[in-house]
Amino acid sequence: MAKKNIGWQALLLHKKLGGKIRIMPSMQIKNRADLSLVYTPGVATVSSVVAKKPRLARMYTIKKRMIAVISDGSAVLGLGNIGALGALPVMEGKCAIFKTFAGVDAIPLVLDTQDADEIVKTVLAIAPAFGGINLEDIAAPKCFEIEKRVIEALDVPVMHDDQHGTAIVVLAAILNALKVVKKKLSSARIVVLGAGAAGTATAHLLHAAGAKDIVVLDSKGIVDASRPEPHKRALAKLNRRRIKGGLQEALKGVDVLLGVSGPKLVKTEDIRLMAKKAIVFAMANPVPEIMPDDAKRGGAAIVGTGRSDFPNQINNSLAFPGVFRGALDNGVRKITTEMKLKAARAIAALVPKPTANKIVPDMFDKRVAKAVAKVIR
Amino acid sequence: MAKKNIGWQALLLHKKLGGKIRIMPSMQIKNRADLSLVYTPGVATVSSVVAKKPRLARMYTIKKRMIAVISDGSAVLGLGNIGALGALPVMEGKCAIFKTFAGVDAIPLVLDTQDADEIVKTVLAIAPAFGGINLEDIAAPKCFEIEKRVIEALDVPVMHDDQHGTAIVVLAAILNALKVVKKKLSSARIVVLGAGAAGTATAHLLHAAGAKDIVVLDSKGIVDASRPEPHKRALAKLNRRRIKGGLQEALKGVDVLLGVSGPKLVKTEDIRLMAKKAIVFAMANPVPEIMPDDAKRGGAAIVGTGRSDFPNQINNSLAFPGVFRGALDNGVRKITTEMKLKAARAIAALVPKPTANKIVPDMFDKRVAKAVAKVIR
Repeated sequence: MAKKNIGWQALLLHKKLGGKIRIMPSMQIKNRADLSLVYTPGVATVSSVVAKKPRLARMYTIKKRMIAVISDGSAVLGLGNIGALGALPVMEGKCAIFKTFAGVDAIPLVLDTQDADEIVKTVLAIAPAFGGINLEDIAAPKCFEIEKRVIEALDVPVMHDDQHGTAIVVLAAILNALKVVKKKLSSARIVVLGAGAAGTATAHLLHAAGAKDIVVLDSKGIVDASRPEPHKRALAKLNRRRIKGGLQEALKGVDVLLGVSGPKLVKTEDIRLMAKKAIVFAMANPVPEIMPDDAKRGGAAIVGTGRSDFPNQINNSLAFPGVFRGALDNGVRKITTEMKLKAARAIAALVPKPTANKIVPDMFDKRVAKAVAKVIR
Repeated sequence: MAKKNIGWQALLLHKKLGGKIRIMPSMQIKNRADLSLVYTPGVATVSSVVAKKPRLARMYTIKKRMIAVISDGSAVLGLGNIGALGALPVMEGKCAIFKTFAGVDAIPLVLDTQDADEIVKTVLAIAPAFGGINLEDIAAPKCFEIEKRVIEALDVPVMHDDQHGTAIVVLAAILNALKVVKKKLSSARIVVLGAGAAGTATAHLLHAAGAKDIVVLDSKGIVDASRPEPHKRALAKLNRRRIKGGLQEALKGVDVLLGVSGPKLVKTEDIRLMAKKAIVFAMANPVPEIMPDDAKRGGAAIVGTGRSDFPNQINNSLAFPGVFRGALDNGVRKITTEMKLKAARAIAALVPKPTANKIVPDMFDKRVAKAVAKVIR
């Protein structure tokens, strides 16, 4: 009922707003003198200068500050493939968050194509005006190829947030959760349930951070070297103990379960298979893999979700605004793994004394975006 | 010197601004309750509803209000083909004008391609989020094909402003100028110097308004039926008297000269060939086809330019903000010739008693966009 009410309230608000962002001129145009500077004839000088020295676009134009938030609507929230227009309210929300949390100007672009090749061509074609590209809610596995090709082609930062925003925030949360239960990342056994965009990037970032034992599962069970998808074969390499089977086999004695899959896939009995002082992040949204109370009944010491109505909300909004704020401010052309690791540590460091119910900073903590931005350089 | 100063001042201002538009959330996000409505979980309901009924995007999303201003940078101001980044300051200025003059939210997109087919594909791919498409500074003749294909493919208003914005404002100015010199459009002889985007659309709109004798010239002289370009062969049909030759032949005894070509192409002696009480619009920017004083010395009764430092500034800004304001407000899917004629008459009507030095309203006259918007339905 509460959830239905939120949906209803959201519809009313969206109708009232008629779109969640507005365009504002950065100066008032009050008379002909103003107009002669921002438009003809004065603008001709600016255009000539920028045309001759393209790098000056970062000084004289919106390329200095503007991010494009781009989606094809193929994997929107928990709703799946609902297409471009369905994705638009989410992308608008993201742009509103960019400005609110980090002062980043961002506009939503939703694409009338779901073909990887056409998506890449479109992103490259509209890239000149932008200082960065945030890819969003694009389904795996095409998201990997698309991101790779766009990164290679452009000299501005490009990030598929479902992958790397999630990975950064999850790593931050794990670092602090391990601190609470007095375990080490290098010896922790980790299960990642979900081999999509979020699961894949998170597993690799955990590995880069020092985790050595990571078992990833998809809907068919533990991913292994026989899988046809290249990104899953790469994930299989992180399965150091060569565990085989399904969720039960994977969970035996492990320290961390990361759910980035779908609603209600994990049961209390599954959690009982885990090691003592288990950490469970059930991040499917809005219905998690397991409800926090059920996870705790199964023996979990620390539980996190993507939701705002439980403790430990693990949400991308802690990462992406600061990542692009930093990239723009510091002239960063590529978001490297090293930067993502630093961003995760910076977020974790904002909760110097983590507890079971407080492993990540609040999303409205104004220090977060600044701390992240500072290390993206 | 004054001009150089304007360019220098414009550079300083653009550096200070770092882009002429900003993105603003349309509501404050102050706490989790706000966030749960504009983002997850509330936004999921909005996304589902819009995905199921795409027409509701015009109620719940920025598609209600947002225009894309799109250029490939192939024909920017008088600067020519300076490419995407060179075009960006102009497109930003246009977006600032859209908001200032008509409250229209518009964002600039500059394309890293100048191929007609790729431009069309890109525009269609990014179209879903937008309530209208303003094509800008795209060279002739490809602009004709691009506009036609985009109009046919989309169900939102599409207008290449260099064509139709210019045509609307020039028609408005001619209607009032003819009133001043007591001549009729139906019997007026008109020469259009320039067979590009502006010249072509203006000639056709004048014809649609009732002008019967229109001679169009390009750099090779009067266009005739032997020209390879289809749009020029169509223009040749407006040459009722089948005049042949160059500018001197064309100007003999005509009532109106419209320059939409390049700097200094017309001489005082050329104007002397025209009929008594001649009307001369020299709209090349920033250097007109003939300076107003020289045209007057040649016998012109009324002179207009595109510049703000002479009387009778004939500028697209009188038309495009109101055209899209009206299209958005009135749910218009196609901008028809009838609407353009009405828009021109609405602009002209705001100067009920025109004089030689006042044939069009001031660009800062707040009635203009409203009057235009009212008839775009």
